[in-house]
Amino acid sequence: MKFTITDNDPGSRARTGMLDTAHGVVETPAFMPVGTRGAVKALSPRDLREVSSQIILCNTYHLYMRPGEELIRDLGGLHAFMGWDGPILTDSGGYQVLSLAAMRKITEEGVSFRSHLDGSSHFLTPEKVVGIQQALGVDVAMVLDECIPYPASREYVKASTDRTVRWARRSLEASRNPDCALFGIVQGGVLKDLREDCAARLADLPFDGYAAGGLGIGEGPALLAEMGAFTAARMPEDRPRYLMGLGKPEDLIHGVRSGYDLFDCVLPTRNARNGTLYTATGKLSIKNAAFARDPRPVDEGCPCYGCRHFSRAYLRHLYVAGEILAAYLNTLHNVCYYQRLMTELRGAVRDRSSLENVAGGIWDLPEPVA
Amino acid sequence: MKFTITDNDPGSRARTGMLDTAHGVVETPAFMPVGTRGAVKALSPRDLREVSSQIILCNTYHLYMRPGEELIRDLGGLHAFMGWDGPILTDSGGYQVLSLAAMRKITEEGVSFRSHLDGSSHFLTPEKVVGIQQALGVDVAMVLDECIPYPASREYVKASTDRTVRWARRSLEASRNPDCALFGIVQGGVLKDLREDCAARLADLPFDGYAAGGLGIGEGPALLAEMGAFTAARMPEDRPRYLMGLGKPEDLIHGVRSGYDLFDCVLPTRNARNGTLYTATGKLSIKNAAFARDPRPVDEGCPCYGCRHFSRAYLRHLYVAGEILAAYLNTLHNVCYYQRLMTELRGAVRDRSSLENVAGGIWDLPEPVA
Repeated sequence: MKFTITDNDPGSRARTGMLDTAHGVVETPAFMPVGTRGAVKALSPRDLREVSSQIILCNTYHLYMRPGEELIRDLGGLHAFMGWDGPILTDSGGYQVLSLAAMRKITEEGVSFRSHLDGSSHFLTPEKVVGIQQALGVDVAMVLDECIPYPASREYVKASTDRTVRWARRSLEASRNPDCALFGIVQGGVLKDLREDCAARLADLPFDGYAAGGLGIGEGPALLAEMGAFTAARMPEDRPRYLMGLGKPEDLIHGVRSGYDLFDCVLPTRNARNGTLYTATGKLSIKNAAFARDPRPVDEGCPCYGCRHFSRAYLRHLYVAGEILAAYLNTLHNVCYYQRLMTELRGAVRDRSSLENVAGGIWDLPEPVA
Repeated sequence: MKFTITDNDPGSRARTGMLDTAHGVVETPAFMPVGTRGAVKALSPRDLREVSSQIILCNTYHLYMRPGEELIRDLGGLHAFMGWDGPILTDSGGYQVLSLAAMRKITEEGVSFRSHLDGSSHFLTPEKVVGIQQALGVDVAMVLDECIPYPASREYVKASTDRTVRWARRSLEASRNPDCALFGIVQGGVLKDLREDCAARLADLPFDGYAAGGLGIGEGPALLAEMGAFTAARMPEDRPRYLMGLGKPEDLIHGVRSGYDLFDCVLPTRNARNGTLYTATGKLSIKNAAFARDPRPVDEGCPCYGCRHFSRAYLRHLYVAGEILAAYLNTLHNVCYYQRLMTELRGAVRDRSSLENVAGGIWDLPEPVA
């Protein structure tokens, strides 16, 4: 995998780049729609392309559980299986083991847990997690890490972060496929010295990219913004930086400003299914009775199929009636909004225009962090 | 509305035709996907077009209840509201009042009932039902009728059918819009003399087309096939004939053979959501474990987006995981199958080839009726 920085914003750490993967080039900063179980909810690959998605994220934990990485490998790999010929990044499952699985137990060797689907027992190691992702045939794999709960004691954070670094080294040693890039994950809770130490030790290892993990799990927006920016600033300049799992529009803008290149979040797709849509003037809840007779599209300036053909009144009707088409049109719209936001962010970096004015300046950004 | 017969099958009553409506021409025989609440479940208008749908059916009862025909009229009519620019036929709601509504009471004037949504009281008359459909701005409206339960006494069937004929006359008198065709509905239960009498009395009225109603409600496949063919044979040659609500593949083939030109049924869309898919070798239940590692498409010869890009294994995975994309891909496939079947039926009539061999001859047809 090759990463080329094409522009730097003089007013912030933001940059644009080209991430050259085994399945094509990604212009960064980029947002990855989430296809947890091998499908972005309600969208087909052609829909994803239509709204300018370049790369998607899938979940190792879910695909390992069902249908299993061997089945996917035997059917030609995840790209062929799900019909997406662009780049795929998989997370490592560390976060899902924490949030979904039962009876979780972490040892130096790995993590044992019970499946959220059928209660079956599993044991994942850093080596096995790399092996699963390489069996899936993805373009970017993530190392197994522990997503540290918040709050946690300094002792816990230190011991966990040290183990995450040891696991990162083992993951690198287990990596067999040069077409599958491997990213390290910086942990360290909300303790700056531990974050800095973790970033430095991972930077000494030959990862293809670096991610910030363990953020957005209860520390609050101010600390999140601060720790996100602090972590990005301690990652190598010449590698892609990935802010994991965070994706309010303001998180994306602040993340780009802080020097991140990749983002993923379930927010646009999940909100769509709940009827919350992103527009030029902010969020809108389509189920609201105020839209019952509203002939306007969800967002006048949006080029998505839904905004070109349907009124808010129709989308409200579909949502209230529980029509599947509501999930489709809403999801397509929100992913379109997110990809347009990313396009605008890349343009702002290239044109040296202010990132604060992106998306009409409607999203409340945290204070920039030095 | 203009109807032109283009070919007649010498071996049966089948014919091809062109139905010229205010929103374009329909090549008949045609299958209408069902968009009950102003949306064909899981499909957008562009999906419907992609799989060669020419005309769709919507439900007067559902749209009258929610969001209401006045709202739709004020927003430019049903075509604009749902983004479908092709022809739309609406049923009259007679069947839904019978099957969905509570506290149903039929008088000479009309039918009173309570909404299945909120329990509110309603009173529909033949005139009001025509008015609702013309407010929706559809291309073909159906008269209000009573769908007679099965079994029913001869007295009940006779009284009900006589009233349906009186309602049909009132419907014609209430019709105000020359761009909205009006079809009469032949009732008469499973009693041939009453069917014949009803058909003859309706044929004396200047309807744009004729439908067979009250079939497929418990009388069994043999009687259904017989009554369907009997009814078609007693409808005017020069008007489109519509077999309401029946749509197993064998019903369509037999229906075409019997002289029908229009069909609608929820079967392809409902079955899709239950994982039952139509193929060149019959029906297939995609949830079956036998498909877990099956690399083949659902149907080798099918040109639909799903069959061109995804394996049975992937579709099974989506279905088992409960992904919304399963409903989309399955529905697109089944509607594609149905429209290809209709294309093949039209071709067989034109080419004077046997209707029995359509779809590979895999569907068990009832005995042809003289």
